[in-house]
Amino acid sequence: MFDLIASGNITSASGFSAGAVHAGIKSTDDLDLAILCSRVICKAAGVFTTNQIKSAPVVLSQRHIAKGRAQAIVVNSGCANACTGQQGLTDATGMANLAAAKLGIPPEQVVVASTGVIGVLLPMDRIRAAIPRIKLTDKGGHDFCRAIMTTDTRPKEIAVQVDSKGGRFTVGGVVKGAGMIHPNMATMLCFITTDAVVNADFLPAALHKAVDCSFNMVSIDGDTSPSDCVVLLANGLAGNKPVDFDDGDAFQEALNEVCTHLAKSIARDAEGATKLVEVTVEGAEDRVWARQAARAVASSSLVKAAIHGNDPNWGRFVAALGRSGARVRGERLDVYLNDICVMKQGSPSPFDKAGMISAMSSRDNVLIRLCLNLGDGRATAWGCDLSEEYVTINSAYTT
Amino acid sequence: MFDLIASGNITSASGFSAGAVHAGIKSTDDLDLAILCSRVICKAAGVFTTNQIKSAPVVLSQRHIAKGRAQAIVVNSGCANACTGQQGLTDATGMANLAAAKLGIPPEQVVVASTGVIGVLLPMDRIRAAIPRIKLTDKGGHDFCRAIMTTDTRPKEIAVQVDSKGGRFTVGGVVKGAGMIHPNMATMLCFITTDAVVNADFLPAALHKAVDCSFNMVSIDGDTSPSDCVVLLANGLAGNKPVDFDDGDAFQEALNEVCTHLAKSIARDAEGATKLVEVTVEGAEDRVWARQAARAVASSSLVKAAIHGNDPNWGRFVAALGRSGARVRGERLDVYLNDICVMKQGSPSPFDKAGMISAMSSRDNVLIRLCLNLGDGRATAWGCDLSEEYVTINSAYTT
Repeated sequence: MFDLIASGNITSASGFSAGAVHAGIKSTDDLDLAILCSRVICKAAGVFTTNQIKSAPVVLSQRHIAKGRAQAIVVNSGCANACTGQQGLTDATGMANLAAAKLGIPPEQVVVASTGVIGVLLPMDRIRAAIPRIKLTDKGGHDFCRAIMTTDTRPKEIAVQVDSKGGRFTVGGVVKGAGMIHPNMATMLCFITTDAVVNADFLPAALHKAVDCSFNMVSIDGDTSPSDCVVLLANGLAGNKPVDFDDGDAFQEALNEVCTHLAKSIARDAEGATKLVEVTVEGAEDRVWARQAARAVASSSLVKAAIHGNDPNWGRFVAALGRSGARVRGERLDVYLNDICVMKQGSPSPFDKAGMISAMSSRDNVLIRLCLNLGDGRATAWGCDLSEEYVTINSAYTT
Repeated sequence: MFDLIASGNITSASGFSAGAVHAGIKSTDDLDLAILCSRVICKAAGVFTTNQIKSAPVVLSQRHIAKGRAQAIVVNSGCANACTGQQGLTDATGMANLAAAKLGIPPEQVVVASTGVIGVLLPMDRIRAAIPRIKLTDKGGHDFCRAIMTTDTRPKEIAVQVDSKGGRFTVGGVVKGAGMIHPNMATMLCFITTDAVVNADFLPAALHKAVDCSFNMVSIDGDTSPSDCVVLLANGLAGNKPVDFDDGDAFQEALNEVCTHLAKSIARDAEGATKLVEVTVEGAEDRVWARQAARAVASSSLVKAAIHGNDPNWGRFVAALGRSGARVRGERLDVYLNDICVMKQGSPSPFDKAGMISAMSSRDNVLIRLCLNLGDGRATAWGCDLSEEYVTINSAYTT
């Protein structure tokens, strides 16, 4: 139903332009301030962190997006503007005002996002000086993507083109990840654009559905950031027949693909990670338990460390499953590692250990499958290995 | 109300003897099989793992201790006998039978415990050959302690002498920790002995209370082991006036001290750890939320990595608090790191960063205090830093 667009990103959909500059918020020379803008006002939907300590940009953006409309996004990396009290909210508002003035739109149409160190005030003088320097073009999506990176090692973006019965449209997305990733209703910064004409009620419903099976199933380290947000802008310039609940399958499928691709790329590019871990739980009593079980296994530090060392220590998968809260009956449990059975009906199943280690060493992903044989609940979660490098990165983040 | 006994351990209380041998279950030459026995039958209480995947020894020991009586404990390290199906239960029963035959007591009076790799069968031939070689003496507590160690770097034991109004008695305990530590209703292997005369109903109540404020407040890595157990044997040989609910304060206090000391020693000697982290939450709406919040902060990989690097990145404490589930109001929150205020009423509080880093570097513990200013709920949790060494240890545990 959809085709991947080569080098596609958030300016692939019609009418979106973006640009970025180095404002000096990061200590490196990298891009750290970016704007995305649509030619026309968009229907907008957002999903934000469930952390009770919300960053100032999250508080402001939730307010701005409440009416389901937005036209632009301004974002910086290097400073999260979180845990910054009243001054933080003043600064986030200032950022929206500066972007709005540059773009000639009302500040309420601007979504603001910040990522980086928590507990530090934004250098507003640098942002004020840099915003006029940003040049927006319809090829600027990739620069925007680079400007939101922190400890990410590579840009993470995608766009797909959909040929639906109602007409052709494009959905593109960009995300930053790396650390403090254990989303719950949201993830780190993710921005999605589409030129599809979409019914206003359908848009947030579709976004929640897509986030639920993608970003909410990724865990890097069990920590949920106060800055998490996913924002979807739909400017309607594709001119398709409006997508709604009764014919939304093609749009939903494309949105799920964009979100799942970006979610997996977060896990693959996690801080210090060398492997993508995919945990599938089958046969749980229901889908809710399957989700919880899959996330518990994908989040376990011991599972992650074993995978880093190519150690087929499957007992740790089972231990994590057993504490996940999902109902488990040991004597019914089958466990597969890279499609090889290691536990059958609760007892160890002999396997070629040397062969398994060698196979694990040679691939950059690991598949864990846990068959509970209790019902038909099924879910997949994504995570990564835990490396010495993760600790090194995170033990001196502000020093 | 109590005095620490120099070099005290689980054979410090009257009438307890212990011994250990190297049976060849571990690949090293270390002690790996031990027995503890009381001269007379004991009142016994146990707290076991809440992991739904329970090791065979846990299943058997829960059955044996159900009537509140036991006389001996047989334990091995190097193999957890968990995820081993029906054969595992047969082997655990065999271990109890072998110990019972040696000691001349009924097998139902023997508690069995195993710790080590999950998903591997016990080498029963080695255990059968080794049990007769164990020599039990009233100085054997320390050897018993060494025999239950896995990745622990030092033995963890304590004994206190209590002079209560009802008479004098002793409480001693031993524990192993190191990894897969995030107890929930229990912890890794812990054995406590006392010669106090204790009312049968009071004993399990006192043990649950002590475990609740000690082992259940420790987290090393968020994983709950299928082998967790705390077993308390009271042989009544001290001849004191029976301890009961109305006069149990001195006993409870001594038991809390033994459990808290052992719990903190688990955190201090965690896999790869260099620092003890103590997280106190004050002013929560109630004690339940305070406990949950304190454990969430102490368990956060990002908090732990920052502490490892002596990085006063306090935003991570607040992020973990915000996702803990406990109610938090950002604008009321005060945060202290090693008693220095870093956040006041939700805004950053300036502090001498270089001085803080230097102070953090020079001490082997870190105190985090979060004042929620919402009520009078208070709790303390213990954890450790996350080091590259933890990953190294756990990435090649079975290879």
